[in-house]
Amino acid sequence: MTESTVNPGAQNGVEVAALDANDRAALFEYLQRLGDDRLVLGHRLSEWCGHAPILEEDIALGNIALDLIGQATRALELAGEAEGAGRSAGRSADALAYFRDAVDFRNLQLVELPPGDFGYTVARQFFFDAFSIHLMDALQHSTHAELAALAVKATKEERYHLRHSSEWMIMLGQGTTESHARVQKSVDALWRFTGEMFKVDDVDRRMAQLGIAPLASDFRARWDDVVNDIFARAELERPKDEFFSRGGRVGHHTEYLGHMLAEMQIVARSHPGAEW
Amino acid sequence: MTESTVNPGAQNGVEVAALDANDRAALFEYLQRLGDDRLVLGHRLSEWCGHAPILEEDIALGNIALDLIGQATRALELAGEAEGAGRSAGRSADALAYFRDAVDFRNLQLVELPPGDFGYTVARQFFFDAFSIHLMDALQHSTHAELAALAVKATKEERYHLRHSSEWMIMLGQGTTESHARVQKSVDALWRFTGEMFKVDDVDRRMAQLGIAPLASDFRARWDDVVNDIFARAELERPKDEFFSRGGRVGHHTEYLGHMLAEMQIVARSHPGAEW
Repeated sequence: MTESTVNPGAQNGVEVAALDANDRAALFEYLQRLGDDRLVLGHRLSEWCGHAPILEEDIALGNIALDLIGQATRALELAGEAEGAGRSAGRSADALAYFRDAVDFRNLQLVELPPGDFGYTVARQFFFDAFSIHLMDALQHSTHAELAALAVKATKEERYHLRHSSEWMIMLGQGTTESHARVQKSVDALWRFTGEMFKVDDVDRRMAQLGIAPLASDFRARWDDVVNDIFARAELERPKDEFFSRGGRVGHHTEYLGHMLAEMQIVARSHPGAEW
Repeated sequence: MTESTVNPGAQNGVEVAALDANDRAALFEYLQRLGDDRLVLGHRLSEWCGHAPILEEDIALGNIALDLIGQATRALELAGEAEGAGRSAGRSADALAYFRDAVDFRNLQLVELPPGDFGYTVARQFFFDAFSIHLMDALQHSTHAELAALAVKATKEERYHLRHSSEWMIMLGQGTTESHARVQKSVDALWRFTGEMFKVDDVDRRMAQLGIAPLASDFRARWDDVVNDIFARAELERPKDEFFSRGGRVGHHTEYLGHMLAEMQIVARSHPGAEW
């Protein structure tokens, strides 16, 4: 499905320690993006823990949040290894999660927006899941063996996530007048944050050349297909593509990320170096 | 291990619909206690989601919280069935979770106390796990078939929970001077809430007569063994048994439960009857 994105010249696998400094820096950057998207979205979802209106949904959202935080942990471990690359130790996943400031986070702005109401949470999750399923599917063929292993596990998880968020999109869209109006409003508000997922820069191009990761632009059409299909079944209107917000990948974030991180990092920062 | 608590005369299984009104009321009461302990503690634990100082622990606490909320959901479903018992529908688990007030909750005061610091969360969890493992083990032999099935699953989960909280007790107890002092302080503060777990009243006695549930007093000695063993390995001092707080089982709660429920129930109550 994604063979086209794998560099045939790199099919024997990438040795991280053998990469030159520029390539390692690009890999470090890329893995932070991958990890931070999932860490921040996992945290946003976990804010629903114990606040969902249905016990079953409380458990479902909690499980999805834990999947994402698990993926993030592994991606940030690999980021730390790329940062160190045999020479020095590189930072741990915990150090990256709890001791970087907002400006050093590399997540999409989409995932840092406050949770909003349930329809908003569902719509945001759906947009992300429809992106992540294709990304993880392609990453299974990565020349970076540990990243490929991460993606094999994550692809299974994402299948469930996408099914879950798609079903909710349809239920809310076809539900009451109010639930339809709310989810449409959320779709409209979130739309301008979806373009950033497919923006490609030098980091992405280098990862694609090394066969480490696909270009997200390569699967944008597939994302469109999923979104259009679910919009049709949910009787939702697709917003027009106008201005797309971006900048998260280089550390330009909305004010919301700082607030979220302050809360997320307070315990770890209050006890730096503590042996728990 | 717990055969002594099963009424041999009831070994062919209890038919909930065949119970008289008093016995059904007692069963309803008992199942709310079982569900509410786990709902409230699960919610308290989920407040750690995204606030633990270590990503791995964030995920572990989240998983334990989800196990507990899952157990609660099933117990409250069974409570609703006992309330209705074939005649009327009885309330759903969601209705019981989100639309009862604090005075109608039947959980132990132990589980409703605010999360405190990490040592406090660990100590509370350990006291509860050492209780719940023996309770669930005995409930596997319940004459109430669905309750026995819940307990089979829960026993497996509790084994992991108890191992996890025991390991943390030992790590914190043997850790730094500060971590030791903190967890000892938490143990001292929580001790007076542990006695309520083993208090037996008419509801418990009727459940035991029907072979539905054990008397908690029957496994108090085993709880003591576990606690003494871990205290010894963690180098913690066992507090003296003096005043024990109680009342949660009949709806007398600390002020903290009301605050927690206000937060937990707000979304469901803002949209009563909404079709999500």
